[in-house]
Amino acid sequence: MGDKLRFGILGGGSWGTALVKMLSENLEDIAWYMRSESAIAHLHHEGNNPNYLSSVQFDVSKLELSNDINHIVASSDILIFAIPSAFLESELGGLTVPLANKIIFSAIKGIVPESGLIVGEHFHEHYKIPFKNIGVITGPCHAEEVALERLSYLTIACADESKAELVANELKSHYIRTKISDDIIGTEYAAMLKNIYAIAAGIAHGLGYGDNFQSVLMSNAIREMKRFIDSVYKMKRNINNSAYLGDLLVTGYSTFSRNRMFGNMIGKGYTVKSAMMEMNMVAEGYYATKSAHLLHEKNEKKSKTPIINAVYQVLYQEKNPKKVFRKLTERLD
Amino acid sequence: MGDKLRFGILGGGSWGTALVKMLSENLEDIAWYMRSESAIAHLHHEGNNPNYLSSVQFDVSKLELSNDINHIVASSDILIFAIPSAFLESELGGLTVPLANKIIFSAIKGIVPESGLIVGEHFHEHYKIPFKNIGVITGPCHAEEVALERLSYLTIACADESKAELVANELKSHYIRTKISDDIIGTEYAAMLKNIYAIAAGIAHGLGYGDNFQSVLMSNAIREMKRFIDSVYKMKRNINNSAYLGDLLVTGYSTFSRNRMFGNMIGKGYTVKSAMMEMNMVAEGYYATKSAHLLHEKNEKKSKTPIINAVYQVLYQEKNPKKVFRKLTERLD
Repeated sequence: MGDKLRFGILGGGSWGTALVKMLSENLEDIAWYMRSESAIAHLHHEGNNPNYLSSVQFDVSKLELSNDINHIVASSDILIFAIPSAFLESELGGLTVPLANKIIFSAIKGIVPESGLIVGEHFHEHYKIPFKNIGVITGPCHAEEVALERLSYLTIACADESKAELVANELKSHYIRTKISDDIIGTEYAAMLKNIYAIAAGIAHGLGYGDNFQSVLMSNAIREMKRFIDSVYKMKRNINNSAYLGDLLVTGYSTFSRNRMFGNMIGKGYTVKSAMMEMNMVAEGYYATKSAHLLHEKNEKKSKTPIINAVYQVLYQEKNPKKVFRKLTERLD
Repeated sequence: MGDKLRFGILGGGSWGTALVKMLSENLEDIAWYMRSESAIAHLHHEGNNPNYLSSVQFDVSKLELSNDINHIVASSDILIFAIPSAFLESELGGLTVPLANKIIFSAIKGIVPESGLIVGEHFHEHYKIPFKNIGVITGPCHAEEVALERLSYLTIACADESKAELVANELKSHYIRTKISDDIIGTEYAAMLKNIYAIAAGIAHGLGYGDNFQSVLMSNAIREMKRFIDSVYKMKRNINNSAYLGDLLVTGYSTFSRNRMFGNMIGKGYTVKSAMMEMNMVAEGYYATKSAHLLHEKNEKKSKTPIINAVYQVLYQEKNPKKVFRKLTERLD
């Protein structure tokens, strides 16, 4: 890796926008794919993304913006995917350029619905990318706080630590610290599961449970997360590291969290459908709940997952949240 | 233990008041010691403690109230101490009645300044109470939420589990769930250390750090707590159980926490003295910080404790919180 490798960011949402901001602190030439032509035009004229983190001013001379995914992929060496997992396959469906010689980092939290796989596994299985060229960028990190340049810590995971190092070096700045990990499976699952627990925290809040209960819920959630991840891929990992526990806490306790907000509405009596309509979006944790449930059904080494089960019953089986959570409280300790 | 044992609660603060409320759900005869004669008179006339959790109405016919500690100790079998650790020795100094044949539970979070010991050890060393007769009642539990009858979980620890069971049975109700543990040392240290971490969370908030950082701080805090407790008394314990992680979270994240509030004022620029005067009380974590520092100095198996060190420097060495926390951020991950 002698020559400077070019980064291409795929996705124009808040997390994609935050990643481009972080990289712009260090790099002079970044490729950025987003679907919206009008957002690209706005960025060219005003220097900010009109739809997400619009307070962030970019030096557009450092950016090559395009809504042609093939052009961005072809001209980049390291691709960072920040497209919601539910839309990943349809975006990749438009690709004619090969991915085989690319380094691929996922900044996506969730499971690809078409394959039922986390993003790293999906690229490995369906695009034949070797694991040494696949990585994960994970928080705890709300994009909104990156926009405000509030100190945040990222974990960059890759089986090939030199590639994790390379990406970490370009992300770090006076407001970003980075940590390297080789646990791409565990960090990806944690990033997905925490959204389910954030929905649970929201439901509990909506139902009137207080701070004492929330802390018990989070204490049970991190133990459940550990059991779940260990049952999928056992390795030596400290579940209390920032990429697991930190990520759970920032989502479960923060008012920025859309998953928590979604759960809160359900707890207050909205139906799943009306909560989605009211929020004008689908919370990632909604899909994650189904994926986790299916994975759990398939998995021979079944771990106890009372919280995921409760959220699944509420979101997919139209069970009464009050009754389901009443039962859940008896299974926690 | 054939006959019904009588409970005596010592302390008229918010936690003592909450404990009496919980016990009143199950017991018809409870002894309650508090210093304030006027509060006792008010309780007799109005049925509530005028100074703490005043919304809680007691059936006073179930209570024997007294400001004579010897009378309450003499007439009780199980003593629950809910006196701030800083005042414990002066209260015990007035005792003429022997403690030797009592079962003693501590609901105190902190270290007895005179001995530098946690409360359980203090009773063992200085009052010759065997460990089988010493227990701990711990949260995560804000007294304010007990007053509101919001579902809360308590951990009752005792080397003799039958005694933990006995106390747990009288505390549980439709809003209290209980769990038994045999880790009196670990749960007591956790209850003390969490107040230091809550001060750290408050300082960080006061300095303008955001939610991303708070989650990293808490993720580091639980790892530091584990190292600290393991270095004092190693045994098999899951640090993510409610009594450790839950208790940390409820204190670190909650707006009810006086320790967090105290830290917040320091972070915003108050001196330690002016913050104490403004709050009209001393946060438990202030003493805990000094105790933890001294313990750490004495301990031969020194664990890394960057967060405790930072709080100690701010509270006791007049170091600039902004600079101390800037340095701390480099030691976290």
